[in-house]
Amino acid sequence: MKTYSSLINGQLVTTDRIHTVINPATGEPCGNITLANAVMAEEALTAAEQASKTYSKSSINQRAALIGQLKKMLLEHQTPIVELLIAETGKTTGIAEYDFNMLVDCLDYFIEEVKRKRETVIPDYDGNGFHYLKHSPVGVVAAFLAWNFPLLNLGYKLGPILATGNCVIIKPAQLTPLSTAYVGELIQQCNFPDGTVNILLGSAAELSKTICSSPIPRLLTMIGSTQAGLQMVADSTTSIKRFSLELGGNAPVIVFDDADIESAVNQIVDLKFSNAGQICVSPNRIFVHKKIYDKFINQITNLVTSYRNGSGDDSGNILSPVISERSLERLISLVDSAVTDGAKLITGGKRAMRKGFFLEPTLLTDVTSDMALFTEEIFGPIIALMPFNDDIDIFELANATNAGLSAYVFTDNRHHIATARERLEYGNILINKVVYSIQLPHGGLKQSGFGKDISHLTLDDLYDIKRISVS
Amino acid sequence: MKTYSSLINGQLVTTDRIHTVINPATGEPCGNITLANAVMAEEALTAAEQASKTYSKSSINQRAALIGQLKKMLLEHQTPIVELLIAETGKTTGIAEYDFNMLVDCLDYFIEEVKRKRETVIPDYDGNGFHYLKHSPVGVVAAFLAWNFPLLNLGYKLGPILATGNCVIIKPAQLTPLSTAYVGELIQQCNFPDGTVNILLGSAAELSKTICSSPIPRLLTMIGSTQAGLQMVADSTTSIKRFSLELGGNAPVIVFDDADIESAVNQIVDLKFSNAGQICVSPNRIFVHKKIYDKFINQITNLVTSYRNGSGDDSGNILSPVISERSLERLISLVDSAVTDGAKLITGGKRAMRKGFFLEPTLLTDVTSDMALFTEEIFGPIIALMPFNDDIDIFELANATNAGLSAYVFTDNRHHIATARERLEYGNILINKVVYSIQLPHGGLKQSGFGKDISHLTLDDLYDIKRISVS
Amino acid sequence: MKTYSSLINGQLVTTDRIHTVINPATGEPCGNITLANAVMAEEALTAAEQASKTYSKSSINQRAALIGQLKKMLLEHQTPIVELLIAETGKTTGIAEYDFNMLVDCLDYFIEEVKRKRETVIPDYDGNGFHYLKHSPVGVVAAFLAWNFPLLNLGYKLGPILATGNCVIIKPAQLTPLSTAYVGELIQQCNFPDGTVNILLGSAAELSKTICSSPIPRLLTMIGSTQAGLQMVADSTTSIKRFSLELGGNAPVIVFDDADIESAVNQIVDLKFSNAGQICVSPNRIFVHKKIYDKFINQITNLVTSYRNGSGDDSGNILSPVISERSLERLISLVDSAVTDGAKLITGGKRAMRKGFFLEPTLLTDVTSDMALFTEEIFGPIIALMPFNDDIDIFELANATNAGLSAYVFTDNRHHIATARERLEYGNILINKVVYSIQLPHGGLKQSGFGKDISHLTLDDLYDIKRISVS
Amino acid sequence: MKTYSSLINGQLVTTDRIHTVINPATGEPCGNITLANAVMAEEALTAAEQASKTYSKSSINQRAALIGQLKKMLLEHQTPIVELLIAETGKTTGIAEYDFNMLVDCLDYFIEEVKRKRETVIPDYDGNGFHYLKHSPVGVVAAFLAWNFPLLNLGYKLGPILATGNCVIIKPAQLTPLSTAYVGELIQQCNFPDGTVNILLGSAAELSKTICSSPIPRLLTMIGSTQAGLQMVADSTTSIKRFSLELGGNAPVIVFDDADIESAVNQIVDLKFSNAGQICVSPNRIFVHKKIYDKFINQITNLVTSYRNGSGDDSGNILSPVISERSLERLISLVDSAVTDGAKLITGGKRAMRKGFFLEPTLLTDVTSDMALFTEEIFGPIIALMPFNDDIDIFELANATNAGLSAYVFTDNRHHIATARERLEYGNILINKVVYSIQLPHGGLKQSGFGKDISHLTLDDLYDIKRISVS
Repeated sequence: MKTYSSLINGQLVTTDRIHTVINPATGEPCGNITLANAVMAEEALTAAEQASKTYSKSSINQRAALIGQLKKMLLEHQTPIVELLIAETGKTTGIAEYDFNMLVDCLDYFIEEVKRKRETVIPDYDGNGFHYLKHSPVGVVAAFLAWNFPLLNLGYKLGPILATGNCVIIKPAQLTPLSTAYVGELIQQCNFPDGTVNILLGSAAELSKTICSSPIPRLLTMIGSTQAGLQMVADSTTSIKRFSLELGGNAPVIVFDDADIESAVNQIVDLKFSNAGQICVSPNRIFVHKKIYDKFINQITNLVTSYRNGSGDDSGNILSPVISERSLERLISLVDSAVTDGAKLITGGKRAMRKGFFLEPTLLTDVTSDMALFTEEIFGPIIALMPFNDDIDIFELANATNAGLSAYVFTDNRHHIATARERLEYGNILINKVVYSIQLPHGGLKQSGFGKDISHLTLDDLYDIKRISVS
Repeated sequence: MKTYSSLINGQLVTTDRIHTVINPATGEPCGNITLANAVMAEEALTAAEQASKTYSKSSINQRAALIGQLKKMLLEHQTPIVELLIAETGKTTGIAEYDFNMLVDCLDYFIEEVKRKRETVIPDYDGNGFHYLKHSPVGVVAAFLAWNFPLLNLGYKLGPILATGNCVIIKPAQLTPLSTAYVGELIQQCNFPDGTVNILLGSAAELSKTICSSPIPRLLTMIGSTQAGLQMVADSTTSIKRFSLELGGNAPVIVFDDADIESAVNQIVDLKFSNAGQICVSPNRIFVHKKIYDKFINQITNLVTSYRNGSGDDSGNILSPVISERSLERLISLVDSAVTDGAKLITGGKRAMRKGFFLEPTLLTDVTSDMALFTEEIFGPIIALMPFNDDIDIFELANATNAGLSAYVFTDNRHHIATARERLEYGNILINKVVYSIQLPHGGLKQSGFGKDISHLTLDDLYDIKRISVS
Repeated sequence: MKTYSSLINGQLVTTDRIHTVINPATGEPCGNITLANAVMAEEALTAAEQASKTYSKSSINQRAALIGQLKKMLLEHQTPIVELLIAETGKTTGIAEYDFNMLVDCLDYFIEEVKRKRETVIPDYDGNGFHYLKHSPVGVVAAFLAWNFPLLNLGYKLGPILATGNCVIIKPAQLTPLSTAYVGELIQQCNFPDGTVNILLGSAAELSKTICSSPIPRLLTMIGSTQAGLQMVADSTTSIKRFSLELGGNAPVIVFDDADIESAVNQIVDLKFSNAGQICVSPNRIFVHKKIYDKFINQITNLVTSYRNGSGDDSGNILSPVISERSLERLISLVDSAVTDGAKLITGGKRAMRKGFFLEPTLLTDVTSDMALFTEEIFGPIIALMPFNDDIDIFELANATNAGLSAYVFTDNRHHIATARERLEYGNILINKVVYSIQLPHGGLKQSGFGKDISHLTLDDLYDIKRISVS
Repeated sequence: MKTYSSLINGQLVTTDRIHTVINPATGEPCGNITLANAVMAEEALTAAEQASKTYSKSSINQRAALIGQLKKMLLEHQTPIVELLIAETGKTTGIAEYDFNMLVDCLDYFIEEVKRKRETVIPDYDGNGFHYLKHSPVGVVAAFLAWNFPLLNLGYKLGPILATGNCVIIKPAQLTPLSTAYVGELIQQCNFPDGTVNILLGSAAELSKTICSSPIPRLLTMIGSTQAGLQMVADSTTSIKRFSLELGGNAPVIVFDDADIESAVNQIVDLKFSNAGQICVSPNRIFVHKKIYDKFINQITNLVTSYRNGSGDDSGNILSPVISERSLERLISLVDSAVTDGAKLITGGKRAMRKGFFLEPTLLTDVTSDMALFTEEIFGPIIALMPFNDDIDIFELANATNAGLSAYVFTDNRHHIATARERLEYGNILINKVVYSIQLPHGGLKQSGFGKDISHLTLDDLYDIKRISVS
C-alpha cells in the first residue's frame, strides 16, 4: 500500500504524519498520505508566486505542449489511476472512467478555448485613440476540491488554470486524495516550471486558513459546502481577492401531469443513484403531480428495486457505497426521522448487509416540506417524493430553499416551460432531459455560489482585464 | 438652507438627528441631512427586495420609459443640482457639470447597452438539445459611494442597475450627500415601483454593517478605500454575496526621455489639479527620466505656478479646495514629511490664505520611494516628481505598490509601449494620452479591487446567468 | 404641385424631362420629378467616391452630430413628409407614420450600434505578435429601393450607411420618389460632405445598368424582385463587388389544429391587409389544418368583411389602394384565374367602386398548389387558404417554392415548433406571433436573397475587414 | 504511373479522356487523370444536393467522428501524398509538408470552431418574445482551387465545409490534381454519405460554366484570378448565389529608413522565394526608402545569390521550379521588358541550365511604376525594388493598383504604423513581421475579392442565418 506525498515547488514533500485512506466499498485501508502542514502551505504559495513569473509569460503554444505532455502521461497511466480512484471512492468503473475522462477532456477543451480567446478593441468616439482589453492571468489560484468526483473536480480547475497561464495550489479532499496525488506525481515529471501546480494533501481545518489568509492567491475557488465557502470568504480579508464558488445544491424536480413518466423516472433514478447520489446536482426534492403520483410511484418502485449494491466492475443496476461511516449514519438518520414524521418508506432505508458503507436503494413517498430530507442536501441514494396539485405555486416551492444549483422539470406544456425559464432561481435549469457537458456553464445562484465551472465562461474568473489605450 | 432626507420604499424619511454639510470653498454650512439609522437600513433592504419582484420582471421598453422620465427630470433640474454639487464639494463649475452629465449619460448609455445584451445559445454536440444562457438581474444591490464625484459615482451605479432591472440601496458619502439627496427627490416623483431605488443618508460606521451583513443584497459594490472594501467583505459572510470593488489607486506616471514633454506636462497637471487631485486615477508617483528631468521640472513649474485657488465659476487655471479640514492637514503633513526627508519643495505646500480648505498648487521634486507621498495615495493637489535612469527597472518600481488602478506612460518607443502593455499591473494603462470615457471599462487590479465600472462589462456584475437546456 | 429633383454632389439637379407621380387613392397626380439620366448617374458616382475620402475618415462623434442634425430636420418636417408619403402611396396614416418613424429610428439605432462596434484581437500562439481586425467602410454603396415602404426602405439603407462612414447613391422607386426627394432636400441642408448621399430620381431601366456596371460602387444593395437582383449581379461584372439583396418572398403560414385560431386569424389578416398586402413578408400561402378549416374560414370571413377601402386618415379596419392600375389588374387576374381553376371566392375579388386603385378585401378558399396565387408572390390584399391534413408533409410543401423570406407557424405543439425551426428554409421564422423590430435581422434565403437588413448584422455588409498584424 | 479519377456520389468515375500531369522539376510526366465532362458535373451537383439532405442534419459529434476518420487516413498516407504533391508541383519537401499539414490542421481547427459556434438570442423589448439566430449550412458549395498549394487550398475549403455540414463539389486545378485525387480516394473510404464530397478532375473551361450556372450550389467559392472570379459571377445569374472569392494580389512592401534592414531582407526573400514566388501574398512591389536603398540592395543581393535551384529534398536555400513552361516564359519576358525600360538586372533573369521549369533567383532594381512587373502580379521568383523618398505619398502608391490582398511595412515609427493601419487598402496588413496562421482571417479587398479564408470568419460564408421568433 503506497504512501503519497504533497507536490510543492516541483518536489514531492513528505512529512511524518501519516493518514490512511479507507475504501468505502470494503471499509479497509487502500492507501496512505502524509499530511501537509501550514509551513508547507506557505512554501507552496511562495512557489506558485515564483512560478507565476515564468508561467504567466509562456505562449499558448508552449502551454499547449506542456498540457499535451500531461495528457499523454495521464492516458498512459489510466489503468492504475482509475483503480486507485475506485478504491478511494468505492465508485463503479463506469463512473470512475467518466471521472477520469473529464480530467483529460478538460485539458484539451480549455487550451482550445484559450486559442480562441479573442480580445476586444473598443471604438474611440473621437477617432484618435486605440483602446483594447487585454486578459492577463490573475497569477496564483487556490482551489479546494470535493471528494465526490476527485478527478473531474481536478480537471475543472486544472484545465482552465493551466491553459490561461495561472499557477495553483490544489487542496484535494482528505477523504479521496490518492488519485489526485498520483496525478501530482505525473505532473512532477512534466516540464511545467516548478511550482506551477502544487498539491497539498491534508486536512482543510489545518491548511485552509493559512492559504485563504495569505495575500498571495488572487483567486480562491472551491467545490464544496456553503459553510466552507463562507469560511473561505471570511478568512480571505487580509487582502482583496476574487472568488469562484461551486457550493451545495438542493435540486428540485417538478414532474407535471403531462410529462413522459417513463422518461422522467429513468432519468431521475439514473442521476440519483449514480455515484450513490453524491453529486451536487442530484435530485433532492421530487415533486410529482397528484394526477400521476400513484403511477409514478409504481414505475419508480420497479426501477429502484432493480438496483443492488456494488462497486467497481459489478454489472447491472449498481448502487455504490457512500463515502464514509459518518455519511451512512447521517443518511439512515434522515430516513428514520422522515418516517417518524409521516413519510412512507417504500423500500430500502437500511444499511446493506455487507462490508463497507452501503445504503440500500431507498425510496420514500409523502415527504413534506418541513422534513430535513427537503430542507437539506441529501447527498446520498435516497429518493424522496412529494405530491403536489394545481392549488399551489410549485415554482415558489421549488425556489423555497437557499440553494440554487440545478432544477429539473418534466412537461410538454409550453407555458410550464416558459414559467420554469423565467421563475426558477437556479443556475442549471434542465427541461425534460438531464444533460451536463463540458461546453455548458455549470454553477449555482443564491447560496449555491457564483462563478461558472467548465464552458468558456470559466475563463472569466482566471483573468484580469487591463484596458490599454494608446494615442 | 434645506434639510434632505433618505429615500426608503418610495418615501422621504426624516429622523431627528441632523447633520450639517460644509462647503469646502468657504468652510460654511451649505445644507443639512437627517441621519438614517440601522432600522431604516433594514426597511430599505426589505423595500428593495419587495420592489425587485416587480421591477425585475419589467420589460426593456418599460425600463427605458422610466429611465427616460428620470433623465428628463434631471435635465429640468440641472441648475439647482449643479449648484448644490458645487456647494458641497467646492468644485469648479466645469468639473461639476462633468460630474452631473456623467449621471445623465449613464442613464442613456446603459439602457442602450441592455437593448443590445444578446444572449448565447451553446451548441449541443448530439444535436438534440437546445441550451441557452439567460441573464437575470441579481435582485438587490447595495452601493457605497465616494465623495469626490457624487453624481458620477451615482450614475456609474444607477445607470446599469436600473437598466438591468435590479433594485438598489445607495449609500452616498456623508461628506457630500446633498446633490444625491436632491436626485432622490426626483426619483421619488418618477414611476419606478416603490423601493426600486433607496438612498440612505448617514454615516458608514452606522449603516454599513447592517447592510453588508443582511442576507438580502446579492451584490455589494463600493467606490471607496481598500480598507473599507475589506471591511465590506468581512461583514458580508452571513450569506454568499458577490462583490464589485473600485478601490483606491496610486497611479504611476513614467515619462521616458523620448516623450513629448509639453504634452506630458499638460496632461499630468491637468489631470492632477482637476477636482483638486481628488480622483482615484490621479497621477501619484511621477517618474521622469534623468535626461529630461531638468527640462521637465522647468516646464511643469511654469504650468503649476499659473494655477490659483478658486471654485465654482472662477476662471483660468483653477485649483479648487480639498474636501475637508482633515484632508488639508493630512496633505500638508505629507509635504512637510517629504521635505524633512529630502524632497525639494518647488512651489506651494501651504494652506492658502483664504477661507475654506485650499492647498496651494504644490510641486515637489527629488521624491524617493520610501516617502509616504509614494507609498500612499495622495488624493490632493501635490505633484511629486522622482527621476529615474536606465539602470533601474522602472516598470518594476511602477508595480511596487499594492495598488493597480491606473498607470500612465509617455514615450514614442515601440518597445517601451509593448513592455508597458505586458508588465504594468494596472486595470487602466494609458499611453501618451489621458482618456476616460463611458465605453471604456474602468477598474483596478490587485488591492484596487475588481469588477469594472462603466462600459459594457459593468453589466456582468449585475446579472445571474442561468443555463437553460430544453430537450 | 411641386417638382422634385435629384441630389447629386450636394446639389439639387434638375432636367427637363418631367415625370408625374400618381396618388393611388385617387388616380390623380400628386407631384412631379425630373428624371435623371446616365450622365448624372456617373456624376453621382464620382461625387460619392470623392466624398468618401472625407466622410470615411470622420469620427463616430462627427457622424453622430451629422446624423443627429438630419434627425432633427426630419422631425421638424414630419407633417409635410408624411402627407407626401400618403399621397404617393395611398397608405393609411398609421402605416405612413410607421414608415416615417422607421427612417428616424434607423438613424438613431445604427449610430448607437456603431458606438458599440467592438473589434477583435486574435491571439498569437507564439506570444510575440498582435493581430486585430479593423472594420473600414467599403466606400461607395449603390442602393435600389422599393415603392412599398419608401422611407422605411430609405432608413434601412441610410441609417447603417451613414453610421459606418460610407457614401451612397440612392435610387428610389420611380412610382414613389416624392417623400425620398423631400428628405433629399433636407440632407442637402445638413453638413454632410457634398456627395455623401446622392439621390437619383428616375427609371431603373435607364439608370441601373450605369450604376451597376461602374467600378466605383463596392457594394450593390437592393430591396426588390429576384429578377431585378439577378440583373444587378449580371450588370456588375466589370469589377468585383459585393451584394446585399432583399428580394421577393412567398410566405407560407401553417395553422395546425391545436393553434389559437382567433389569434392566428387576427394576426394573419392584420399583416395581410396592412399596406394593402404590399409587404415582402405578407402571408401568401395559408395552410390550415382540415380539422379546423371550416371554423377558421368562418372566423376569417368575419374579419375580412369588416374591412373597407380607404386611405390616409380613414378610420376603422381600412384597406388602402394598391400601387398602380397595372398592379390592380394583375391581382384581379390572379383571382379570376384561381376561381376558374376551382378556388372558391368567399368575398371580394373585384375593383372597388371608387376612384383610385382599390381592390375589395378578398378571400379565397380551396386554393391548390398549382395556382399562380401559390407559386407567385401576390403582393396585394388577397387571402388564399388551402386545407391540409396529416397525410402530407406540410413543411415540405411550405418549402416548395424558391422564396425563402418569411414563414409563419401557429401551434402549441413542441414538436411542430422544433420541426419548424429545423426544416423551414426561411430567413424569418415566426411562431405564434408576427413580430418585426429594428433589432431583429431581416432577410431571406434561397431566391429571396442574402444579407440582412436592420439589426446589428446589417453592418457586416458595409465594412471591409483588414487583418492587421504588428510584431 | 497511376491514373486518377473523379469522385462523384461516392464512386470513382473514369472517362476515356486521359490527361497527363507534368512534374515541373523535370518536365516529365508524373501521373494521369481522366477528364470529367459536363454530364459528370451535373451528376456531382445532384449527388451533393442529395447528400446534403442527410449530411446537413448530422450532429457535431457525428461530423467530428467522420472528419477524425479522414484525418487518421491522411496521416497514415502522408508519405505517398506528399511525394505526389512534390511531383506535381516541383516544391521542396518543407513546403510540401506545410501544404499537407495545413489540410490536416484545417480538419481539426474547424470542427473545434464549430463546437464553439455559439448562437445569438436577441432581446425582446416588450419582454414577451424569444428571438434567436440559427445558423444552418447553406447546402451545396462549389469550390474552384488553385495549383500553387493544392492541399492547403483543399483544406481551406474542406475543413470548414465538412465541419459546418455542407456538401461540396471540388474542382482542383488541372495542373496539380493528383494529390487532391489521392485524397479523394481516401474520402471515398470514409463513412461520409455518398456525395458529401465530390471532386471533379478536368478543365475549368469545360466544367466551370456548368457548375456555376446550375441552380444547385448556394455558394460559389474560388481561389484564383480576378478574371476567373468575374467569370464565375457572370455565369452564376441563373439563380441567386453567394460568393467567396480569394483572388490575385499585388503585394506592396514598404521599407522605411528606420526599418531593421536585415530582418526586412530576410523576411522578404524568404517569402518571395518560397514556393518559387507562386503565392498570392508574395511581395510584388518592394519600395525601399532612398536613404537605405544601397545598403538594402547589398544585403538582399547577398541573400538572393545564396539561393540555388532545386526541389523535393534538396537542402540549403532552395528555389523550386515554376509551375509550367508557359509560366517560365511569361516571367522571363517580364524581366526582359523591365530591363528594356530601364530596370537594372542585378542577378538571375534567365532559365536555369537544367531540366524542368526553373528560373534563376532574380533581382531587379530601379523598377518604375509603369512596368508590368509593378502593375501585374508576378507570381514567380523575381524580386523587384523601387526606391522612394519623402516627397511622395508612398501609401498612395502602395494603394495604386486594383489588388488588395496583402501589404507589408517595415518601420519602427509609430506614426508610419498608424498611417499604414488607416490607409493601406489591403485585407492583410503585416507590420515588421510576415505571419500567416490558421486563426488569422485571410482575404482581400477591392479586386482581390471578398470573404475570408481560414479563421473563425470563414464560417460566415457557409451558413444561412434564420431568425426564429417564438412568442
